[in-house]
Amino acid sequence: MELPRKIQAVVKALSRLPGVGEKTALRQTLVMTRWHANEISELAKAFENLQTLGKCIECGMYCDEKLCVVCSDETRCESEVLCVVENLNDCLAIEKSGTFSGIYHVMGGVLNPLLGIGPNELELDQLLARVKKYQIKEIILAVNSSVEGDATCALIKEMLPEETQILRIGFGIPMGGSLEYLDSLTISKALENRRHL
Amino acid sequence: MELPRKIQAVVKALSRLPGVGEKTALRQTLVMTRWHANEISELAKAFENLQTLGKCIECGMYCDEKLCVVCSDETRCESEVLCVVENLNDCLAIEKSGTFSGIYHVMGGVLNPLLGIGPNELELDQLLARVKKYQIKEIILAVNSSVEGDATCALIKEMLPEETQILRIGFGIPMGGSLEYLDSLTISKALENRRHL
Repeated sequence: MELPRKIQAVVKALSRLPGVGEKTALRQTLVMTRWHANEISELAKAFENLQTLGKCIECGMYCDEKLCVVCSDETRCESEVLCVVENLNDCLAIEKSGTFSGIYHVMGGVLNPLLGIGPNELELDQLLARVKKYQIKEIILAVNSSVEGDATCALIKEMLPEETQILRIGFGIPMGGSLEYLDSLTISKALENRRHL
Repeated sequence: MELPRKIQAVVKALSRLPGVGEKTALRQTLVMTRWHANEISELAKAFENLQTLGKCIECGMYCDEKLCVVCSDETRCESEVLCVVENLNDCLAIEKSGTFSGIYHVMGGVLNPLLGIGPNELELDQLLARVKKYQIKEIILAVNSSVEGDATCALIKEMLPEETQILRIGFGIPMGGSLEYLDSLTISKALENRRHL
C-alpha cells in the first residue's frame, strides 16, 4: 500500500536529518498528524526562519545580533587568546567546560576540496585580520583529528605570522577512559603526548 | 553560552517529535544550517501541507484522494470482512503481512476519556453504517492490548448487530520469540489461546 503523497513528502524530508531513518520518520510524521494545525505551522515557521539565521560579523558563530555573546564581551576580546573551532557545536562543548576565556573563530568546517571547501569558505583572511586587531599571542586549534583537520591546521600555521604561538588541542586518553578499551591510535597519541608529573 | 533564538526555536520544535531529545535536535538543527535555503523551505512546505492532509471518506485512512487505495478496490469491498485498526501505522503493518484482503476502518485512536476521545471521535457510527452497506459478515478487531483497547473492543461488540461475527486478533508468542524471555502476561495469553494441532 502506498502512503499518501503529503505523508511521503514529510517522511522524505525528515529522513534527511541525521539519526532519522524511514521508519522513525514515518512514526514522527504520524505523531504530527495528531497535532493541532498551529503547532505544525509553528514548526514550519521555525524551519523557514533558519534560512535567515545570522552569523557574528567577527567570529562567524551563528547568532541573533551582529555580534555574538563572546565577541561583545570586552574582557574576552582583551584576553589575547583565540580558539579556532569547526562549528557551533564544538564551541558549545568548550564553553561548557568553562575553562576558556578567550575569543573564537568558527570556521564552519574544515578544508575539503571534494566538497569545495577551501580557505575562503573557512574565512581564514578574517582570522588573520582579527589576530592582528586583537594582538592575539596564542592560538589554540581545537580541530578534531582527521586528514582534513590536520591539513587545515597546517594551512593555518603557514598563514599566521611567526611570532604567534600556535597550539593544537591535546589528544590522549579521555578522563574516565580505560586503556583496555581504547583504540591503538589514541594510545600511541597519548604516549607521544606524555608529560612530566 | 545561550543559543541564537532561531536555533532555539527549531531545537524546541524538533524535540517535540518522538525519539528526539534536545541533544539530537541540536545536532539535527546544526546539520540543517548547512543546507541550501530551498532544501529548508521544501521541508517547511512539507510540514505546512500536512495540515491539509485528507482522510478517506469511507474508512478514515489518511489519503490524497477522496477514497483510499483499499476502499477504491472493488474486490476488497466485496470480501465481507472488515478489520478495525487504531491508525495508519497498524494498517500498514497488516498490509505488509499480505494476508488480509478485506477493508479497514481506521479509528484514529482508542477510547480515552482523559484525552476526550469518545465513540464520536472513533467514527463508530460510520463503522456501523459500513457494516450494513457492505454486508460485512466478519469483523477483526486488530486493536493492541491495553485497558483502553479492551474497552474499545467491548464497546464495538455492543454496538454491532448480533449476527456479525466479531473477532479479536490473536495474542500469543511472537514468531521467533523465546518463552524464556517473554513476560508472564504474554505467556498466560498464549496458554489461553492454545490450539489443536
